Amino acid sequence: MIPETTGTEGETLIAKVMSTVRSRIASRALTPGAKLPSIRSFSTNLKVSKSTVVEAYDRLAAEGLIRSRPGSGFFVAAPLAPLSLADLGPKLDRQVDPLWISRQALESGDDVLKPGCGWLPPSWMQEEGLRRALRALARGNASTLVDYGPLLGLPALRTLLARRIGLRGIEVSPEQIMLTESGTQAIDLLCRFLLKPGDTVLVDDPCYFNFHALLRAHQAEIVGIPYTQTGPDIAAFADAVEIHRPRLYITNSALQNPTGATLSPLVAHRLLKLADKAGLTIIEDDIFADFEETPAPRLAAFDGLERVVHIGSFSKSLSAAVRCGFIVAPRAWIEPLADLKIATSFGGPGFSAALMLALLKDGSYRKHMEGVRQRLARAMAETTTKLTQIGITPWLEPQGGMFLWCKLPDGVDAADLARRALAKKIVLAPGNAFSHAQTASGFLRFNVAQCQDERLFRELALLIA
Amino acid sequence: MIPETTGTEGETLIAKVMSTVRSRIASRALTPGAKLPSIRSFSTNLKVSKSTVVEAYDRLAAEGLIRSRPGSGFFVAAPLAPLSLADLGPKLDRQVDPLWISRQALESGDDVLKPGCGWLPPSWMQEEGLRRALRALARGNASTLVDYGPLLGLPALRTLLARRIGLRGIEVSPEQIMLTESGTQAIDLLCRFLLKPGDTVLVDDPCYFNFHALLRAHQAEIVGIPYTQTGPDIAAFADAVEIHRPRLYITNSALQNPTGATLSPLVAHRLLKLADKAGLTIIEDDIFADFEETPAPRLAAFDGLERVVHIGSFSKSLSAAVRCGFIVAPRAWIEPLADLKIATSFGGPGFSAALMLALLKDGSYRKHMEGVRQRLARAMAETTTKLTQIGITPWLEPQGGMFLWCKLPDGVDAADLARRALAKKIVLAPGNAFSHAQTASGFLRFNVAQCQDERLFRELALLIA
Repeated sequence: MIPETTGTEGETLIAKVMSTVRSRIASRALTPGAKLPSIRSFSTNLKVSKSTVVEAYDRLAAEGLIRSRPGSGFFVAAPLAPLSLADLGPKLDRQVDPLWISRQALESGDDVLKPGCGWLPPSWMQEEGLRRALRALARGNASTLVDYGPLLGLPALRTLLARRIGLRGIEVSPEQIMLTESGTQAIDLLCRFLLKPGDTVLVDDPCYFNFHALLRAHQAEIVGIPYTQTGPDIAAFADAVEIHRPRLYITNSALQNPTGATLSPLVAHRLLKLADKAGLTIIEDDIFADFEETPAPRLAAFDGLERVVHIGSFSKSLSAAVRCGFIVAPRAWIEPLADLKIATSFGGPGFSAALMLALLKDGSYRKHMEGVRQRLARAMAETTTKLTQIGITPWLEPQGGMFLWCKLPDGVDAADLARRALAKKIVLAPGNAFSHAQTASGFLRFNVAQCQDERLFRELALLIA
Repeated sequence: MIPETTGTEGETLIAKVMSTVRSRIASRALTPGAKLPSIRSFSTNLKVSKSTVVEAYDRLAAEGLIRSRPGSGFFVAAPLAPLSLADLGPKLDRQVDPLWISRQALESGDDVLKPGCGWLPPSWMQEEGLRRALRALARGNASTLVDYGPLLGLPALRTLLARRIGLRGIEVSPEQIMLTESGTQAIDLLCRFLLKPGDTVLVDDPCYFNFHALLRAHQAEIVGIPYTQTGPDIAAFADAVEIHRPRLYITNSALQNPTGATLSPLVAHRLLKLADKAGLTIIEDDIFADFEETPAPRLAAFDGLERVVHIGSFSKSLSAAVRCGFIVAPRAWIEPLADLKIATSFGGPGFSAALMLALLKDGSYRKHMEGVRQRLARAMAETTTKLTQIGITPWLEPQGGMFLWCKLPDGVDAADLARRALAKKIVLAPGNAFSHAQTASGFLRFNVAQCQDERLFRELALLIA
C-alpha cells in the first residue's frame, strides 16, 4: 500500500486535516492554549491515517498556529489574540477600517495635516483656563488629589451638569447622572449593560466610525439606517425595527457626526413613537452639545429619559487629555450601572472631574466657547469655498460644529484618495469608514478647524486631478 | 362553566402564566422592551383561557414588570437592567457581596472608620509631590493639557516603567507596555481580549473581591484555588487545570490581596510548568509592587512574558484620583489590545500619565515610598498586637503592604460582625467577600493604615464579646 501521505491524494487529506483545525480555531471551538485531539482519535474521526494527522500537525506547528509539547501532545499557540476586533467583523480594507483613522490621527506627527481628525487643534482649546484650574487645584484640598471620589462622581459637577442639561430641555436630577472616564466609556458601559452577543443595534449610516468598532467589540449585529438631512430615514427605521427587532439605537441628535445634520422635531417625534412601540432603547450621544449656536431638539427632552439615555463628555470642548464623560439615565439604571463601573474600572474620573468643575464654574468657559463657535463658523465658510473650488461639494451646510461631509467629484474613490494623501502627509477620513453599508465611497469628512493650511487644498487638487 | 379566573384553580393558572413570563424575562428570552406574546397565542400555547392571560398580564403590569401600550400589546418594562451584575451570579448576601465593600468604602463619610478599605488614607499619600507636579504641568506644554495622547500612552512614561519593571527581573521593551485608565481597566481589557462567556477562570481563594465582580461581568465561570502561605495550592491547581480546562488564572505574586502572602520560587516554578503544559494565560496583578521591601519573585520574570501578562497602576501608591494603569504583554498582543482600547474608551490617560511621569521622575517618590513602608511596618506591628489582644489572630506575618488577613475567634461570623459594625460606623471587609467557595466566614481583612484610631479596637472587642 502506498502511504497516504505521499502523492496528490495524500496532500488533499493533509490539507483537509489542516483546514479542520484552522476552522475549529477560528470558530473558537479550540481556543488558544487548548489541547488538540490526540493523533489516534483525530485519525479515527476524520477517517485518515495517523501519519496524515502527524504531518498536518507538524505543518501547523511550523506555521506557528499550534505548538508541540513533547510527551503531552499539541496545543493551540497562545499569543493568537482570539478576540481581536479584526476577527469579529468582515475584514475591511485597513485604510477605511474604523480604527485606521483613529490610529492615524492619534499617531501622526506635527508635520502632518489632519483634516480627517475628529477634534480641534490644541491651539483652539482653552489652554489658559486649564492652566488656571490646575493651579487652583494644586492649592486645593488633599482628598481631591489623592482619594477615590464618590461612586457616581463629584456631586458638585453632577449638580452643575444637571442644570446645563436642563437648558437643553432635559429635566434631570443629579442622582440620574453618573460620571465616567470618557464619552466612549459611557457608551461602552451602556452596551455592556444592555447587549448580549448577537443583539441587533441600529446606527445611522453614515455615523461616527468608532460606533462600528465599539459594537464589533460587543459582538452586536449592526444595521445602518440611511441618514437624511433631518435625521434617520423614518421609513427605513420603521422597516428595520420590524425586521431586525433591534435592542438599541445609537445616534447624535444635534451636529451629527459625520454629516453635521440636526434632527428635525418631526423626525424626532416619529422616531420616538416607533421606539416606544417596539420597546427600543436609544443612546443619544451629545458630545458636541456646546458647539451649537441654538439648541436643537434632543430625543431625551421629548422622551423624559424613559427610553432615551443621554451621554456627553468634555473631550471636544475642554480637553481630550483630561478624561471625563457622563451618563444621564433612568433612575433605576444608575445603581446597576455603578456596580458595573466598579467591577470594570473601579474608581471614576476623580481628579479630572474636579478639573472639569473648576473650568465649567468659571464664566470664561462660556466666553471661550462663544469664540470657538465664531471661529468655526468662519472656518466653515472658508473651507466650503475652497473645497467647492476644487470640485469637492458639501452635502449640507451644518448649523455649527467642526464637520463638513463632502461629495467627491464623480469617479474619485475616497479610500484610494486617502491612501495617496497619506503619502503626502495628509490624514483624510474616507466616507466608508462611517458607512456600515459601505455606500459612502464618494465622500470625505472634513474637520474645518484642521483645514487652515493652504497646502491641503493644493495637494487635494493635485491628488484629484 | 365557571370562569377559570376565579377560585383556587384560576389563581393557580394565573400564577403559572405569571411565572412563565417571569422566567422568560429572567432567562432573557424576553428582553426589556420586547413585546410579549399576544393574549390569543399565549392562551393557546399555555392551554389556558384568554381571561387568565389578561389577568396575569394585568398583575405583572401592576408590579411594573411589563407595560401595556394601548393598541399594541404588552412589553417588558424598560428599566429592568437585564445585565445587572447581581443577576449573573448566585445571589450573595449583599453585606458580603464583592461590590458592597467597595460601595461602603467609597461612599462613607469622614466620621466612619474604614479598616476594611483597600487603600491608604489621603494623609499617607504624597500630597506635596502631587501639588508640585501639578504646578509644573500648569506651566508645561499645551498639548499635554488638551490633546489626545499617543495610542499606547506617553512614551517617556513607558520607558521609565520598562526600567522600573526591569528592576523586578522582568525584561521588557517600552513597546510592550500600554497605558490604561486604571489597573482594573487593564484587567478588564485583557478579559475582553481573552474570554468569551462561559470560559473558566482560576482565581486564588481568597483573592481581591473585585476579581469576582469583574469576572461575573464577563460571565466567566470562576474556580477558586485555595491559597497557602507560599502561593496557590499546587495540587489543587493541577486538578483544576485538568478538570476545568481554564482559559486564564488571575493572581498577585507579591503581597497578595487579601492575605499579604508572597509566592515562593518553588511554587512559582511549578505553577508555570502546569500553565505551560495546559496553555493557560496568567494575569499577574502587581499593583502593590512599590510596597515591598525586597522584590519577591514575579511570574512574569520567570516566564519572560510568554504566557504571563503583567499589570500595574499608581492608585495605591501615588493617587487614586489621578487614573493611570498599564499592561505589560507579549509583543503580538499590543496592537489588538490597542484597537480594543480605542473602540471601548478611545483615548488613554493623557494628562494623568503626564502627572505620573512628573511624580515618578522626581527622586522624592522613592523617598516617599520608603517612608510609607516604614510607617506601614510600624502600623502592622501595632495592629497585630492590638488585634491579638482582643482575640483576632493574623493568619500570616506579611513581608510588607497594608493588609492583615485575620482569623476571628471561633463562632464569630464575619458577615454578621460587619453588619453590626456598620451600625457603629465601622466598615469591615468580611472574609467571604474574598472567597469564591465562601469558606472564609471566620476571617476579616484589615488595612493597618486604616487602623490608627483606638475606637476601632474598643468597638471590635465589644462587638465580638
